[in-house]
Amino acid sequence: MGILYNRVADQLQSLIHEGVYREGERLPGVRVLSRQFGVSISTVLQAHQTLESRGYLEARERSGYFVRLPPRDTPVPSMARPKAQPLPVSARDMALDLCSVERKSLVPFGAAVPHPDFLPLRQIQQASIWAARQGLETLDYAFPSKLVFRRLLAQRMTSLGVVVAPDDIIATNGAQEAIILALRALTRPGDIVAIESPSFPGILQSLEIVGLRAIEIPVHPTDGISLEALQVALEQWPIKACVVVPNHSNPMGVRLTDHRKQRLVNLLTDAGVPLIEDDIYGDLAYDGERPRPAKAFDTSGNVIYCSSFSKTISPGLRLGWVIPGRHFADISQQKYFSNLATASLPQLAVTRFLEQGGYDRYLRGARQRYRDATERMRAAVARAFPEGTAISRPMGGFVLWVELPRRVSGTEVFAQARAAGINVAPGKMFSTTDKYQHCLRLNCANPWSDRIETAIQRLGEIVHQLNGSSPGQ
Amino acid sequence: MGILYNRVADQLQSLIHEGVYREGERLPGVRVLSRQFGVSISTVLQAHQTLESRGYLEARERSGYFVRLPPRDTPVPSMARPKAQPLPVSARDMALDLCSVERKSLVPFGAAVPHPDFLPLRQIQQASIWAARQGLETLDYAFPSKLVFRRLLAQRMTSLGVVVAPDDIIATNGAQEAIILALRALTRPGDIVAIESPSFPGILQSLEIVGLRAIEIPVHPTDGISLEALQVALEQWPIKACVVVPNHSNPMGVRLTDHRKQRLVNLLTDAGVPLIEDDIYGDLAYDGERPRPAKAFDTSGNVIYCSSFSKTISPGLRLGWVIPGRHFADISQQKYFSNLATASLPQLAVTRFLEQGGYDRYLRGARQRYRDATERMRAAVARAFPEGTAISRPMGGFVLWVELPRRVSGTEVFAQARAAGINVAPGKMFSTTDKYQHCLRLNCANPWSDRIETAIQRLGEIVHQLNGSSPGQ
Repeated sequence: MGILYNRVADQLQSLIHEGVYREGERLPGVRVLSRQFGVSISTVLQAHQTLESRGYLEARERSGYFVRLPPRDTPVPSMARPKAQPLPVSARDMALDLCSVERKSLVPFGAAVPHPDFLPLRQIQQASIWAARQGLETLDYAFPSKLVFRRLLAQRMTSLGVVVAPDDIIATNGAQEAIILALRALTRPGDIVAIESPSFPGILQSLEIVGLRAIEIPVHPTDGISLEALQVALEQWPIKACVVVPNHSNPMGVRLTDHRKQRLVNLLTDAGVPLIEDDIYGDLAYDGERPRPAKAFDTSGNVIYCSSFSKTISPGLRLGWVIPGRHFADISQQKYFSNLATASLPQLAVTRFLEQGGYDRYLRGARQRYRDATERMRAAVARAFPEGTAISRPMGGFVLWVELPRRVSGTEVFAQARAAGINVAPGKMFSTTDKYQHCLRLNCANPWSDRIETAIQRLGEIVHQLNGSSPGQ
Repeated sequence: MGILYNRVADQLQSLIHEGVYREGERLPGVRVLSRQFGVSISTVLQAHQTLESRGYLEARERSGYFVRLPPRDTPVPSMARPKAQPLPVSARDMALDLCSVERKSLVPFGAAVPHPDFLPLRQIQQASIWAARQGLETLDYAFPSKLVFRRLLAQRMTSLGVVVAPDDIIATNGAQEAIILALRALTRPGDIVAIESPSFPGILQSLEIVGLRAIEIPVHPTDGISLEALQVALEQWPIKACVVVPNHSNPMGVRLTDHRKQRLVNLLTDAGVPLIEDDIYGDLAYDGERPRPAKAFDTSGNVIYCSSFSKTISPGLRLGWVIPGRHFADISQQKYFSNLATASLPQLAVTRFLEQGGYDRYLRGARQRYRDATERMRAAVARAFPEGTAISRPMGGFVLWVELPRRVSGTEVFAQARAAGINVAPGKMFSTTDKYQHCLRLNCANPWSDRIETAIQRLGEIVHQLNGSSPGQ
């Protein structure tokens, strides 16, 4: 993020992590920091608020700001070891249960869906009203999609290094549909597909309804998918496609460097295996430029790029897109035969929102809010959960991956949390194996409140109890 | 239709068909007819206009109305004989071609898509603007669909004799998606599914992408699908599902009587074979009450009801629904895993349109306009095409099924028409067999114009030429 106070906050946070400022210590006064960082006093005050919202500072009346870092530096999860063989997928029961009870009555840490407060409601409304007024333009089957929509997407993709024409793009009902269309076009039932491990439940669901087997490639908590493990798997199995989330992978939140994206693309291209790229979190990087998609390194059309506006503008639009590369004919047939076209109104509304420049302005703020919410949640979980817990350190998006002490069952936490009115996603939903039984994924895209704070405390008590430890420790 | 002038028009039309009034004859004066039918003069004048718009009368200045019936009573197509065995489906090339060139530059007799003039543009706009203003309500994943939408559908379905609760209904991206979700839930690749013959291309496309084989059951031009042939097929093959359009089947336009619907449901229930009912044209009956769906005769949950608003409100909404009966769990999983939910905005817009009562008012007029357009087109085709042509006499919807003299290839007509700027759907798109090579389907949902009239003339010339006859004969 290019915002000044944010950079100051980041530096202060690093200093806290490095022990320059310790738990409970008072931060230097505003004027001192203003001189120290060479910024205005109001910038320092904004940085304070930012760190407070991330849970790193506590304001005490008339006394200033005090450091509130978790007492230990919570580690990030370890990398799982690759599984020896492809396994069939059965994601059905847990996924349907999770979605069917993701009701307003539960504290929503379960599904990776942003709270409406994080979405640009006013802009969506204005753009949708504009779209509704377009009359005739809303009536037709927009296959492969409305031209105005494709044109804007082509512009955006080109600015990310993916040089495409409007005719290279097909609108879909979200990124999940894009991935399934690609899988159906590339595979036959029983085929093997390489996926990340842990992988988000939507991928496992896609593989299940297409009838595919998964070979899981471990994700390193800071480097992303293991290219070495992928290479071994490619040599060992007749893999028909590989699904990767190169930017802010769900649930780990990790991002591949450009260099590793390039290597990933080359590796798969050389092996003749198409890469299905899911870039749904690409717009939600916590710092720096908008990262490039892997597709930007694709020169042969081997990468099928999938994305959507479900995590940024609104899930209710059901609007995504696919850039099928050299698989255009097969994927466009799958789309046309499946449901002919994607609804016109949402396409026109998003076009309007993008055209008016509102989207980029909104994104700048959204990335900050998602980051603050996720870091605050991370700090709160680190305080409430027992020693031996590891928490991912996401580079974007809004979920945390939590490794509990080995003896604690995530499924048991899920059950007890549900009884306490809290929804979480248990680790077993993220793999075809039993590797993540002691894990949880937490959705952080909620406005901070006493209810959220209390829910994390309660989760901590549940985990402590299953761990045989006590929250006081 | 309950409208008085319409009944008078129907009676006059019958009299014309029965030869009471002959081609070129002047109709009795307005006062005479008014006395004869016991209706007001203005009603007779409206009946005249209706028959004129159907192509049965010609107004000559100061002389009155003259009969313009096609010189011979064009027969309806014959029933095809059942094929001996199930065949794999390959609908891809023609369908993609048809859709890719269905451009504004061609005369649109190809796809069964209503011209925007037939759609309630103003009401859609108002309802969509209302929906866009609902703000928060538009943002969520509406799975299985917005409750307000399901509630209204449940009311409408109940009024048609299908007693369902809101929770029995899932919103889909059109009826095509509903059919595919049902097929995926009920079958495995290679399975056999019974379909109507001729059948609309969407069914063949569905079977193709799910990897199924079709056994074709002939459709009688006035009675609908042959229950006798279906029974034979059920005894002979391990059929996994049966797809039928009981109301105004596409392309034949025929409707099953309630008695035959009941028999169809019983036959399949006894055989343990689910019926996938496509009722997309049910709201577009030309006369009488809105016909009941086959689902109204289902007591065991064996019928999966599919429909949409694509032929009545707008194809661009991509809004349909499925009532899966006892297959709810499987079909709802298919939907959730495929694309999570259907866009919220179109659901809210249609709910508003239905709630405000605009839909039923609009339907009354629409059924009349579709009927007029289809009958006028039928008369024009009958005049322009050679002896030996048979034309369906639809009971609803807006397409005609045309059987050309056997020596004329529909595919050749398609190619020559395309070169002349006219799009038609050739018979081979309606079957996995070569039974309908000499057939065409014509979309009639276009406002009448010189361009349309000229295009029919031109089509007639093409058919005459391929037939070796001359238009003058």
